[in-house]
Amino acid sequence: MTTGSPYSMLSVEDAFNVTLTQARPPAPVHRPLSEVRGAILAADIAAQEPLPPFPASTMDGYAVVAADGPGDYPLIGEVSAGALAGFTVQPGAVAYITTGAPLPDGADAVVMIEETERLDGGGDAPRIRIGQQVNPGVNVRPVGVDVEAGQTVLAAGERLDPAEIGLLATAGIVDVPIFPRPKVAVLSTGDELVEPGEPLGPGQIRDSNRAMLLAAIRAAGGEPVDLGISGDTQEALEARVRQGLEQADILLTSGGVSMGDLDLVKPLLEHAGTVHYGRVRMKPGKPVTFATADVEQGRRLVFGLPGNPVSSLVTFYLFVVPALRKMAGWPDPRLRQVQARLAQPLPLDAYRPEYHRATLSWDAEQACFIAASTGIQASSRLLSMRTANALLALPQREGTMAAGEPVAALLIGDL
Amino acid sequence: MTTGSPYSMLSVEDAFNVTLTQARPPAPVHRPLSEVRGAILAADIAAQEPLPPFPASTMDGYAVVAADGPGDYPLIGEVSAGALAGFTVQPGAVAYITTGAPLPDGADAVVMIEETERLDGGGDAPRIRIGQQVNPGVNVRPVGVDVEAGQTVLAAGERLDPAEIGLLATAGIVDVPIFPRPKVAVLSTGDELVEPGEPLGPGQIRDSNRAMLLAAIRAAGGEPVDLGISGDTQEALEARVRQGLEQADILLTSGGVSMGDLDLVKPLLEHAGTVHYGRVRMKPGKPVTFATADVEQGRRLVFGLPGNPVSSLVTFYLFVVPALRKMAGWPDPRLRQVQARLAQPLPLDAYRPEYHRATLSWDAEQACFIAASTGIQASSRLLSMRTANALLALPQREGTMAAGEPVAALLIGDL
Repeated sequence: MTTGSPYSMLSVEDAFNVTLTQARPPAPVHRPLSEVRGAILAADIAAQEPLPPFPASTMDGYAVVAADGPGDYPLIGEVSAGALAGFTVQPGAVAYITTGAPLPDGADAVVMIEETERLDGGGDAPRIRIGQQVNPGVNVRPVGVDVEAGQTVLAAGERLDPAEIGLLATAGIVDVPIFPRPKVAVLSTGDELVEPGEPLGPGQIRDSNRAMLLAAIRAAGGEPVDLGISGDTQEALEARVRQGLEQADILLTSGGVSMGDLDLVKPLLEHAGTVHYGRVRMKPGKPVTFATADVEQGRRLVFGLPGNPVSSLVTFYLFVVPALRKMAGWPDPRLRQVQARLAQPLPLDAYRPEYHRATLSWDAEQACFIAASTGIQASSRLLSMRTANALLALPQREGTMAAGEPVAALLIGDL
Repeated sequence: MTTGSPYSMLSVEDAFNVTLTQARPPAPVHRPLSEVRGAILAADIAAQEPLPPFPASTMDGYAVVAADGPGDYPLIGEVSAGALAGFTVQPGAVAYITTGAPLPDGADAVVMIEETERLDGGGDAPRIRIGQQVNPGVNVRPVGVDVEAGQTVLAAGERLDPAEIGLLATAGIVDVPIFPRPKVAVLSTGDELVEPGEPLGPGQIRDSNRAMLLAAIRAAGGEPVDLGISGDTQEALEARVRQGLEQADILLTSGGVSMGDLDLVKPLLEHAGTVHYGRVRMKPGKPVTFATADVEQGRRLVFGLPGNPVSSLVTFYLFVVPALRKMAGWPDPRLRQVQARLAQPLPLDAYRPEYHRATLSWDAEQACFIAASTGIQASSRLLSMRTANALLALPQREGTMAAGEPVAALLIGDL
């Protein structure tokens, strides 16, 4: 019977650093443009051609020789987007042109249609009255004004959000070099767990952590792998852990890391690889365990997350998300941090820094974030994560923080 | 030849309100728990059973009758998570218990293992030395302490992020009532457009808007439908628009909404439904057009987005995203707004409010957001959207805003 953990207690900062040191992005891959949203670019992207590739009109109007000036001129043709004009605009003539169309040879400016009049006074060719003096280049986008040929339009390390996808399309890149999404497997452990859709037997509870973690992995940009529920036997657990290490870059176990007879996860991880930490000075989440294991496919990260649902999700955000981001190629994998003011006083813990769940909202009058606590912070009470979009990093000390005091808030969801 | 737009110019606020009035969520559907992340819940969810459903130990230790107090007691059994004990703890006896296991009948508290000693001094049954006086209820989670039976654990209108998914699992809800993701179709128009992977012919440019908008729809929680590129003929365009109205709740056309001969989109929308606005006083994005069309499947929203990539994406965020969110059931579909301080002076536009692209970052020292401009704001220059996570709402007036001045920032990406 174990009567204490063999692991020394690390600070959150030390545990974080140990974790990040072990997380490394795998080799880049190429993926189709339609599948890379949210991924990190693995190489610089240069434009092959200038944009626009031809001098283009920014208006519907008439392509002119600017030096001609105002007056009535014969209309010698039309040019619309998608094709080059088959003619040259000589001095003393004009051509109709639409937005985005290539400026015809000879022309050097465009007069917008509102400054012109079409004179259909019988006769043969229509004439156009130009009412405005323009300088050369007016209403024309020169070649390469938006993007020069060879210019780096995106750099390695940038995240591919919609605008960056548009820039890849502009550059003609349809096979995109990115860091692949890390695969993250989740295994729930415990004889007391049943699937959410099953009726509860005596002494049983529903497995809420697995569905929650699978959703959190997807939200963090990982590719989830569901390993189901393992009963509390050495053999059952070992087989699933082996499966997880084969199939995924990161393995999460949920439950089975506190201190009793049936806590099989820690010994198993010691056997399968190297345990880097097994206790962290934090509330909630103290029993969180981190190990690495080398298998044929490479080095895997393994997190033994506590079974209490809040502890499980808080340690997921604090340690797994940054590791996942680093493996996905993020240059700065840390959770984003802002300052907020407390909406109500909060008691502090004298022995451990606390990660208090809160809902941040922007206060337009005070021009600052207000952090509203989600209520009773028991680590079993998943309701304390409901609507939470931040973890308030409360310092370890006696007493209380007053309402209105500033506090560091780590963002875990949309504002 | 059209020489002016028949549409009066709306303010951004009026255009926004007109748009939102037309956007309504469709009837709720039920979807499996594994598929509802990011969706809005369409009904309140009540817990069927209390949580925990039995009095549960929060520690590894010994289940005791608290009134017994410290002393040596016979060990009469063990109880672990997942099953009820088959025995009763009488006064003067103790039972081993693990974290999460149901408290055996008769016991009313748990003494943690660190406060006990196992006495294996030969003889038959082992005895346990209890070193601590505890009160009834210590280290025990009573029935329903986290969630009471019948309690509303989630309310209609809440977004299903990972914690909420966990709460659904806890409540045993695997078939979840949500508002379905709106389907959003994208059609690019213009004879000058070629697919990103194709070589550029004379006068041609690559279609960057469609890939960008499809990614933006996915990021905003919609389900994208790709209608490809339509050439600039009435027939080609009509057929694709009809297809879009059949297949999607929202249809986006990109290009073909400015003022020339080949601007077929606006007349087509007038014919197919009702055009609510066709010009908005904003920079960029002035030609943005909004219509509704009633088809067999119901009322559809149609946005004619400008062809310039920046105008297209800015109007997507300002009008399409809120409409999409409202149709997806969001109680507040507006873009989130914060205040930021300008990193550099910015010139203003005397005639139109400008939505200036910027990258917000949190300045820890000043405890505020700093907004860095993405540079030259030409509406054709998609590089001005690169790394932008906010649109700065610059007021319409002469002059310049100074560095350090506060400005309203609409969030369009992660911080």
